[in-house]
Amino acid sequence: MNIIFIGAGNLATHLSQAFQRANHRVLQVYSRTEESASSLAALLDCPFTTRIEEILPDAEVYVFSVRDAVLQDLAERLYAHLRQVATAGNPRRGAGALFVHTAGSMPLDVLPMLRRGVFYPMQTFSKSRHVDFCQIPIFLESQTDMRLMELLARALSQQVYHLDGERRRYLHLSAVFACNFVNHMYDLSARILEPHDIPFHVMLPLIDETASKVHTLPPHEAQTGPAVRYDKNVMDHHLDLLADAPDMQQIYKLLSRSIHDKL
Amino acid sequence: MNIIFIGAGNLATHLSQAFQRANHRVLQVYSRTEESASSLAALLDCPFTTRIEEILPDAEVYVFSVRDAVLQDLAERLYAHLRQVATAGNPRRGAGALFVHTAGSMPLDVLPMLRRGVFYPMQTFSKSRHVDFCQIPIFLESQTDMRLMELLARALSQQVYHLDGERRRYLHLSAVFACNFVNHMYDLSARILEPHDIPFHVMLPLIDETASKVHTLPPHEAQTGPAVRYDKNVMDHHLDLLADAPDMQQIYKLLSRSIHDKL
Repeated sequence: MNIIFIGAGNLATHLSQAFQRANHRVLQVYSRTEESASSLAALLDCPFTTRIEEILPDAEVYVFSVRDAVLQDLAERLYAHLRQVATAGNPRRGAGALFVHTAGSMPLDVLPMLRRGVFYPMQTFSKSRHVDFCQIPIFLESQTDMRLMELLARALSQQVYHLDGERRRYLHLSAVFACNFVNHMYDLSARILEPHDIPFHVMLPLIDETASKVHTLPPHEAQTGPAVRYDKNVMDHHLDLLADAPDMQQIYKLLSRSIHDKL
Repeated sequence: MNIIFIGAGNLATHLSQAFQRANHRVLQVYSRTEESASSLAALLDCPFTTRIEEILPDAEVYVFSVRDAVLQDLAERLYAHLRQVATAGNPRRGAGALFVHTAGSMPLDVLPMLRRGVFYPMQTFSKSRHVDFCQIPIFLESQTDMRLMELLARALSQQVYHLDGERRRYLHLSAVFACNFVNHMYDLSARILEPHDIPFHVMLPLIDETASKVHTLPPHEAQTGPAVRYDKNVMDHHLDLLADAPDMQQIYKLLSRSIHDKL
């Protein structure tokens, strides 16, 4: 397939390269800033643009991988532009192409076109880090093009699911807890160690085992530590150690209480 | 070495077996309840008791692996008992033995004896789950027996550190964030999915990558998601989805704010 990427952030960077490795062709990259458009285009060895009216009408798939807040506006502007340009005779390119977005939190109908889909690879992407797409679950939604989306997804991953928009919202919320909030706990852990010259890497075996455990035990059965025992001595002592960090004290109290309440 | 275990919980279960595999001899297990004493003793193929006055005076090392709240009292009662019984002539057994505790949160001097140490393997232990001790960092403190403790620790793990009690308190607090609070985030994530019939295992690639990332990136650089972008639309939408769970709503707000404040 001939694909054009709208957006050049972390997800677009990884997904576009994964499509290229799967022998799809990325025709062009659009991004609002020349810096990010040109760096992704360099990785893909393809042209780029920062102007919507220069986006080519030749793709069979346009992938929107942009901030949620700008997604709808960008899609509407691109669709208007593509309807004005000739599509070299192929009705399934340009304005007749499939448009997909990659945002777990956004509904399908934020895209104004007829042929549309959601293609949500649920993973945390950082530009500096290689990820292996074949282990990433991809969640699909489309009323018009599920077969084509399945083909695209299965070329990248062994874990492909159909999921409607309502359930995808909860999945996305769940991912904030399992990833972003988890990572923030790692960050707070590192901040506690730093003034005491304890290197963060000593935490890695514990971090890895905590993640591994929930492969075989439901999280509430895997829980250990002072809050699940409601060991008030230890918890009061920990709160004392956090006396200079009232924000972390508040987090400690709220999460300990929550662990205990959910027993 | 001849070792007696005081306590038969998760940590005692794993640590005593690891010592046995390293060709140390576990002479006896004490636990308050016959059920846990006898099950660990069965695993180790050794005698057990539920009475302090029956603890044998023949060990060179007594390992206390009990709840923090009862540690000091148990240690005092065992020391008093051992001083009353004959030790078969060896001054480094019984009341003359080395006493260690395994509690990251407790100071060394909670043990009343002369020869004492802290032997803190930092890991999350569940009885049903095998753990590989050689990857577990062990933190040691002793004024009298550091060489002996090093020998014991290095027989189990490649990661052995000396750490004084003051810094160990912060390490233990940090572990609550990196393990217990992280696991609670997994639990909340699972609770969000459950009513929507989305199986928790779809989260595992995300959970694993979130843990893997901090092997190569500092956690604050690894952060992604709506809070780090402060994407208010997405966050308000997530709070709406949590309308029936005010406790989780409060956690969501507090952690999103904290992620943003720490940027």
